[in-house]
Amino acid sequence: MHPDLEPIAFLVGTWRGEGRGVYPTIASFEYGEEIRFAAVPGKPFLSYQQRTWALDDQRPLHAETGYWRPKPDGRLEVVLAHPTGVSEIEEGSVSGGVIDLTATSIGLTATAKEVTGLTRRLELVGDDVLRYEVQLAAAGQPLQGHLTAELRRVDEA
Amino acid sequence: MHPDLEPIAFLVGTWRGEGRGVYPTIASFEYGEEIRFAAVPGKPFLSYQQRTWALDDQRPLHAETGYWRPKPDGRLEVVLAHPTGVSEIEEGSVSGGVIDLTATSIGLTATAKEVTGLTRRLELVGDDVLRYEVQLAAAGQPLQGHLTAELRRVDEA
Repeated sequence: MHPDLEPIAFLVGTWRGEGRGVYPTIASFEYGEEIRFAAVPGKPFLSYQQRTWALDDQRPLHAETGYWRPKPDGRLEVVLAHPTGVSEIEEGSVSGGVIDLTATSIGLTATAKEVTGLTRRLELVGDDVLRYEVQLAAAGQPLQGHLTAELRRVDEA
Repeated sequence: MHPDLEPIAFLVGTWRGEGRGVYPTIASFEYGEEIRFAAVPGKPFLSYQQRTWALDDQRPLHAETGYWRPKPDGRLEVVLAHPTGVSEIEEGSVSGGVIDLTATSIGLTATAKEVTGLTRRLELVGDDVLRYEVQLAAAGQPLQGHLTAELRRVDEA
Protein backbone atom coordinates (compact mmCIF):
# COMPACT_ATOMS: atom_id res chain seq x y z
CA MET A 1 0.00 0.00 0.00
CA HIS A 2 1.28 3.49 -0.87
CA PRO A 3 2.55 5.24 2.31
CA ASP A 4 0.35 8.31 1.68
CA LEU A 5 -2.68 6.10 2.36
CA GLU A 6 -1.87 5.63 6.04
CA PRO A 7 -4.41 8.22 7.35
CA ILE A 8 -7.30 6.41 5.61
CA ALA A 9 -5.94 2.84 5.65
CA PHE A 10 -8.64 2.01 8.22
CA LEU A 11 -11.24 2.33 5.44
CA VAL A 12 -9.84 -0.51 3.32
CA GLY A 13 -12.26 -3.42 3.12
CA THR A 14 -15.94 -4.08 2.62
CA TRP A 15 -18.56 -2.53 4.90
CA ARG A 16 -22.24 -3.49 5.13
CA GLY A 17 -25.10 -2.03 7.12
CA GLU A 18 -28.26 0.01 7.08
CA GLY A 19 -29.17 3.67 6.83
CA ARG A 20 -32.05 6.09 6.86
CA GLY A 21 -32.80 8.97 4.50
CA VAL A 22 -34.95 12.04 5.11
CA TYR A 23 -35.57 15.22 3.13
CA PRO A 24 -38.42 17.74 2.98
CA THR A 25 -39.22 16.92 -0.66
CA ILE A 26 -39.44 13.12 -0.35
CA ALA A 27 -40.81 10.39 1.90
CA SER A 28 -38.34 9.10 4.50
CA PHE A 29 -36.79 5.75 3.59
CA GLU A 30 -34.50 3.06 4.98
CA TYR A 31 -31.88 1.23 3.00
CA GLY A 32 -29.27 -1.50 3.05
CA GLU A 33 -25.79 -0.47 1.98
CA GLU A 34 -22.45 -1.91 0.99
CA ILE A 35 -19.26 0.14 0.62
CA ARG A 36 -15.94 -1.16 -0.66
CA PHE A 37 -12.65 0.73 -0.34
CA ALA A 38 -9.70 -0.88 -2.15
CA ALA A 39 -6.03 0.00 -2.66
CA VAL A 40 -4.35 -0.23 -6.07
CA PRO A 41 -0.71 -1.41 -5.91
CA GLY A 42 1.61 1.59 -5.65
CA LYS A 43 -1.11 4.23 -6.03
CA PRO A 44 -1.81 7.06 -3.52
CA PHE A 45 -5.60 6.71 -3.56
CA LEU A 46 -8.33 4.27 -2.58
CA SER A 47 -11.02 3.28 -5.03
CA TYR A 48 -14.55 3.55 -3.64
CA GLN A 49 -17.72 1.75 -4.67
CA GLN A 50 -21.01 2.13 -2.87
CA ARG A 51 -24.47 0.73 -3.51
CA THR A 52 -27.72 0.78 -1.58
CA TRP A 53 -30.87 -1.32 -1.80
CA ALA A 54 -34.43 -1.32 -0.50
CA LEU A 55 -34.84 -3.33 2.69
CA ASP A 56 -38.19 -4.80 1.59
CA ASP A 57 -37.38 -6.31 -1.80
CA GLN A 58 -33.62 -5.66 -2.24
CA ARG A 59 -34.16 -3.62 -5.41
CA PRO A 60 -31.17 -1.37 -6.19
CA LEU A 61 -31.51 2.24 -5.01
CA HIS A 62 -28.52 4.59 -5.18
CA ALA A 63 -24.88 4.02 -6.08
CA GLU A 64 -21.67 6.07 -5.98
CA THR A 65 -18.16 5.45 -7.23
CA GLY A 66 -14.87 7.35 -7.15
CA TYR A 67 -11.51 7.81 -5.50
CA TRP A 68 -10.26 9.02 -2.09
CA ARG A 69 -6.92 10.91 -2.12
CA PRO A 70 -5.22 11.69 1.22
CA LYS A 71 -2.86 14.67 1.15
CA PRO A 72 -0.32 16.07 3.65
CA ASP A 73 -1.42 17.67 6.93
CA GLY A 74 -4.55 15.54 7.26
CA ARG A 75 -6.19 16.89 4.15
CA LEU A 76 -8.41 14.60 2.08
CA GLU A 77 -9.69 14.96 -1.48
CA VAL A 78 -12.54 12.83 -2.85
CA VAL A 79 -13.74 12.58 -6.46
CA LEU A 80 -17.20 11.06 -6.91
CA ALA A 81 -19.61 10.12 -9.71
CA HIS A 82 -23.31 9.50 -9.09
CA PRO A 83 -25.65 7.76 -11.57
CA THR A 84 -28.16 10.57 -10.93
CA GLY A 85 -26.08 12.77 -13.25
CA VAL A 86 -24.04 14.43 -10.51
CA SER A 87 -20.24 14.65 -10.23
CA GLU A 88 -18.56 15.94 -7.11
CA ILE A 89 -15.26 17.09 -5.71
CA GLU A 90 -15.32 16.85 -1.91
CA GLU A 91 -12.47 18.23 0.20
CA GLY A 92 -11.81 18.19 3.91
CA SER A 93 -9.82 16.47 6.60
CA VAL A 94 -9.10 13.15 8.28
CA SER A 95 -8.02 13.03 11.91
CA GLY A 96 -7.94 9.77 13.80
CA GLY A 97 -11.03 7.94 12.68
CA VAL A 98 -13.03 11.05 11.80
CA ILE A 99 -13.42 12.35 8.25
CA ASP A 100 -15.12 15.65 7.41
CA LEU A 101 -15.81 16.54 3.77
CA THR A 102 -17.53 19.40 1.96
CA ALA A 103 -18.42 19.48 -1.74
CA THR A 104 -16.22 22.16 -3.37
CA SER A 105 -17.39 21.46 -6.94
CA ILE A 106 -20.66 19.93 -8.14
CA GLY A 107 -21.26 19.13 -11.82
CA LEU A 108 -24.73 18.35 -13.18
CA THR A 109 -25.85 16.81 -16.46
CA ALA A 110 -28.61 18.59 -18.40
CA THR A 111 -31.30 16.30 -16.96
CA ALA A 112 -29.99 15.95 -13.37
CA LYS A 113 -31.96 17.25 -10.43
CA GLU A 114 -30.43 20.35 -8.87
CA VAL A 115 -27.86 19.69 -6.13
CA THR A 116 -26.10 22.75 -4.72
CA GLY A 117 -24.32 21.56 -1.58
CA LEU A 118 -23.25 18.46 0.31
CA THR A 119 -21.24 17.66 3.42
CA ARG A 120 -20.23 14.22 4.65
CA ARG A 121 -18.90 13.10 8.04
CA LEU A 122 -17.61 9.57 8.66
CA GLU A 123 -16.55 8.21 12.03
CA LEU A 124 -14.82 4.93 12.83
CA VAL A 125 -16.21 3.48 16.06
CA GLY A 126 -13.93 0.84 17.56
CA ASP A 127 -12.12 -1.06 14.79
CA ASP A 128 -14.99 -2.31 12.68
CA VAL A 129 -17.97 0.05 12.80
CA LEU A 130 -18.31 3.01 10.44
CA ARG A 131 -20.99 5.65 10.94
CA TYR A 132 -21.67 8.45 8.51
CA GLU A 133 -24.02 11.35 8.00
CA VAL A 134 -24.64 13.34 4.83
CA GLN A 135 -26.12 16.81 4.71
CA LEU A 136 -27.60 17.89 1.39
CA ALA A 137 -28.76 21.10 -0.30
CA ALA A 138 -30.95 20.15 -3.26
CA ALA A 139 -34.30 20.88 -4.92
CA GLY A 140 -34.15 24.48 -3.67
CA GLN A 141 -33.75 23.45 -0.02
CA PRO A 142 -30.93 24.69 2.26
CA LEU A 143 -28.20 22.33 3.48
CA GLN A 144 -29.70 19.92 6.01
CA GLY A 145 -29.52 16.35 7.28
CA HIS A 146 -30.25 13.77 4.59
CA LEU A 147 -28.61 10.40 5.36
CA THR A 148 -27.37 8.57 8.46
CA ALA A 149 -26.03 5.03 8.41
CA GLU A 150 -24.03 2.53 10.41
CA LEU A 151 -21.97 -0.14 8.70
CA ARG A 152 -19.86 -3.02 9.97
CA ARG A 153 -16.65 -4.27 8.39
CA VAL A 154 -17.40 -7.62 6.73
CA ASP A 155 -14.14 -8.15 4.83
CA GLU A 156 -10.66 -6.68 5.34
CA ALA A 157 -9.72 -6.56 1.66
CA MET B 1 -32.10 -4.35 -18.72
CA HIS B 2 -33.90 -1.00 -18.54
CA PRO B 3 -35.40 -0.15 -21.99
CA ASP B 4 -33.70 3.28 -22.04
CA LEU B 5 -30.35 1.47 -22.30
CA GLU B 6 -31.03 0.15 -25.81
CA PRO B 7 -28.90 2.79 -27.64
CA ILE B 8 -25.78 1.82 -25.64
CA ALA B 9 -26.59 -1.84 -24.93
CA PHE B 10 -23.76 -2.77 -27.31
CA LEU B 11 -21.27 -1.51 -24.70
CA VAL B 12 -22.25 -4.04 -22.02
CA GLY B 13 -19.43 -6.44 -21.28
CA THR B 14 -15.69 -6.43 -20.72
CA TRP B 15 -13.29 -5.01 -23.32
CA ARG B 16 -9.53 -5.41 -23.41
CA GLY B 17 -6.88 -3.97 -25.69
CA GLU B 18 -4.08 -1.49 -26.10
CA GLY B 19 -3.74 2.22 -26.59
CA ARG B 20 -1.25 5.00 -27.16
CA GLY B 21 -0.98 8.38 -25.44
CA VAL B 22 0.69 11.55 -26.70
CA TYR B 23 0.80 15.11 -25.39
CA PRO B 24 3.23 18.02 -25.79
CA THR B 25 4.09 18.08 -22.09
CA ILE B 26 4.88 14.36 -21.62
CA ALA B 27 6.70 11.46 -23.30
CA SER B 28 4.48 9.33 -25.54
CA PHE B 29 3.43 6.05 -23.96
CA GLU B 30 1.62 2.81 -24.74
CA TYR B 31 -0.75 1.04 -22.40
CA GLY B 32 -2.90 -2.00 -21.86
CA GLU B 33 -6.53 -1.33 -20.97
CA GLU B 34 -9.62 -3.03 -19.65
CA ILE B 35 -13.08 -1.44 -19.65
CA ARG B 36 -16.20 -2.95 -18.10
CA PHE B 37 -19.74 -1.69 -18.73
CA ALA B 38 -22.43 -3.33 -16.59
CA ALA B 39 -26.20 -2.94 -16.22
CA VAL B 40 -27.87 -2.71 -12.81
CA PRO B 41 -31.28 -4.45 -12.67
CA GLY B 42 -34.03 -1.94 -13.48
CA LYS B 43 -31.75 1.09 -13.68
CA PRO B 44 -31.47 3.43 -16.72
CA PHE B 45 -27.66 3.69 -16.65
CA LEU B 46 -24.58 1.54 -17.17
CA SER B 47 -21.80 1.48 -14.62
CA TYR B 48 -18.33 2.00 -16.11
CA GLN B 49 -14.95 0.92 -14.78
CA GLN B 50 -11.72 1.43 -16.66
CA ARG B 51 -8.08 0.74 -15.81
CA THR B 52 -4.86 0.89 -17.75
CA TRP B 53 -1.44 -0.61 -17.16
CA ALA B 54 2.11 -0.32 -18.50
CA LEU B 55 2.88 -2.86 -21.23
CA ASP B 56 6.38 -3.56 -19.92
CA ASP B 57 5.77 -4.45 -16.27
CA GLN B 58 1.96 -4.32 -15.91
CA ARG B 59 2.13 -1.62 -13.22
CA PRO B 60 -1.19 0.25 -12.87
CA LEU B 61 -1.38 3.58 -14.75
CA HIS B 62 -4.71 5.43 -15.02
CA ALA B 63 -8.23 4.49 -13.95
CA GLU B 64 -11.71 5.97 -14.40
CA THR B 65 -15.11 5.09 -13.01
CA GLY B 66 -18.63 6.41 -13.43
CA TYR B 67 -22.01 6.02 -15.09
CA TRP B 68 -23.39 6.33 -18.64
CA ARG B 69 -26.96 7.67 -18.94
CA PRO B 70 -28.71 7.49 -22.34
CA LYS B 71 -31.49 10.02 -22.84
CA PRO B 72 -34.18 10.50 -25.53
CA ASP B 73 -33.28 11.56 -29.09
CA GLY B 74 -29.87 9.90 -29.03
CA ARG B 75 -28.51 12.08 -26.26
CA LEU B 76 -25.99 10.61 -23.82
CA GLU B 77 -24.83 11.87 -20.41
CA VAL B 78 -21.71 10.52 -18.70
CA VAL B 79 -20.54 11.17 -15.12
CA LEU B 80 -16.90 10.32 -14.42
CA ALA B 81 -14.42 10.33 -11.54
CA HIS B 82 -10.65 10.17 -12.07
CA PRO B 83 -8.12 9.33 -9.34
CA THR B 84 -6.05 12.30 -10.56
CA GLY B 85 -8.47 14.60 -8.70
CA VAL B 86 -10.71 15.34 -11.69
CA SER B 87 -14.49 14.92 -11.95
CA GLU B 88 -16.30 15.30 -15.23
CA ILE B 89 -19.70 15.62 -16.79
CA GLU B 90 -19.55 14.64 -20.46
CA GLU B 91 -22.55 15.12 -22.76
CA GLY B 92 -23.17 14.25 -26.38
CA SER B 93 -24.81 11.74 -28.65
CA VAL B 94 -24.98 8.09 -29.61
CA SER B 95 -25.98 7.09 -33.13
CA GLY B 96 -25.55 3.53 -34.33
CA GLY B 97 -22.22 2.44 -32.91
CA VAL B 98 -20.73 5.94 -32.70
CA ILE B 99 -20.60 7.97 -29.49
CA ASP B 100 -19.43 11.58 -29.35
CA LEU B 101 -18.95 13.28 -25.98
CA THR B 102 -17.71 16.68 -24.80
CA ALA B 103 -16.90 17.63 -21.20
CA THR B 104 -19.49 20.20 -20.12
CA SER B 105 -18.30 20.42 -16.49
CA ILE B 106 -14.85 19.68 -15.06
CA GLY B 107 -14.19 19.73 -11.30
CA LEU B 108 -10.67 19.77 -9.87
CA THR B 109 -9.38 19.09 -6.36
CA ALA B 110 -6.94 21.62 -4.86
CA THR B 111 -3.91 19.52 -5.86
CA ALA B 112 -5.11 18.27 -9.28
CA LYS B 113 -3.30 19.25 -12.46
CA GLU B 114 -5.26 21.71 -14.57
CA VAL B 115 -7.66 20.13 -17.09
CA THR B 116 -9.83 22.56 -19.06
CA GLY B 117 -11.37 20.48 -21.87
CA LEU B 118 -11.93 16.95 -23.08
CA THR B 119 -13.75 15.25 -25.94
CA ARG B 120 -14.21 11.53 -26.45
CA ARG B 121 -15.30 9.56 -29.52
CA LEU B 122 -16.02 5.83 -29.40
CA GLU B 123 -16.82 3.67 -32.40
CA LEU B 124 -18.01 0.09 -32.51
CA VAL B 125 -16.37 -1.77 -35.40
CA GLY B 126 -18.21 -4.96 -36.31
CA ASP B 127 -19.74 -6.52 -33.20
CA ASP B 128 -16.74 -6.88 -30.92
CA VAL B 129 -14.16 -4.16 -31.54
CA LEU B 130 -14.32 -0.77 -29.84
CA ARG B 131 -12.06 2.09 -30.91
CA TYR B 132 -11.85 5.39 -29.08
CA GLU B 133 -9.98 8.65 -29.21
CA VAL B 134 -9.72 11.30 -26.50
CA GLN B 135 -8.77 14.92 -27.11
CA LEU B 136 -7.52 16.84 -24.09
CA ALA B 137 -6.90 20.47 -23.10
CA ALA B 138 -4.63 20.46 -20.05
CA ALA B 139 -1.46 22.02 -18.61
CA GLY B 140 -2.11 25.23 -20.54
CA GLN B 141 -2.31 23.43 -23.92
CA PRO B 142 -5.25 23.75 -26.35
CA LEU B 143 -7.58 20.81 -27.04
CA GLN B 144 -5.69 18.19 -29.05
CA GLY B 145 -5.29 14.46 -29.60
CA HIS B 146 -4.24 12.61 -26.44
CA LEU B 147 -5.33 8.94 -26.50
CA THR B 148 -6.22 6.39 -29.14
CA ALA B 149 -7.03 2.76 -28.36
CA GLU B 150 -8.57 -0.36 -29.81
CA LEU B 151 -10.24 -2.92 -27.56
CA ARG B 152 -11.88 -6.27 -28.20
CA ARG B 153 -14.88 -7.66 -26.35
CA VAL B 154 -13.65 -10.46 -24.07
CA ASP B 155 -16.82 -11.08 -22.05
CA GLU B 156 -20.47 -10.31 -22.81
CA ALA B 157 -21.51 -9.59 -19.21
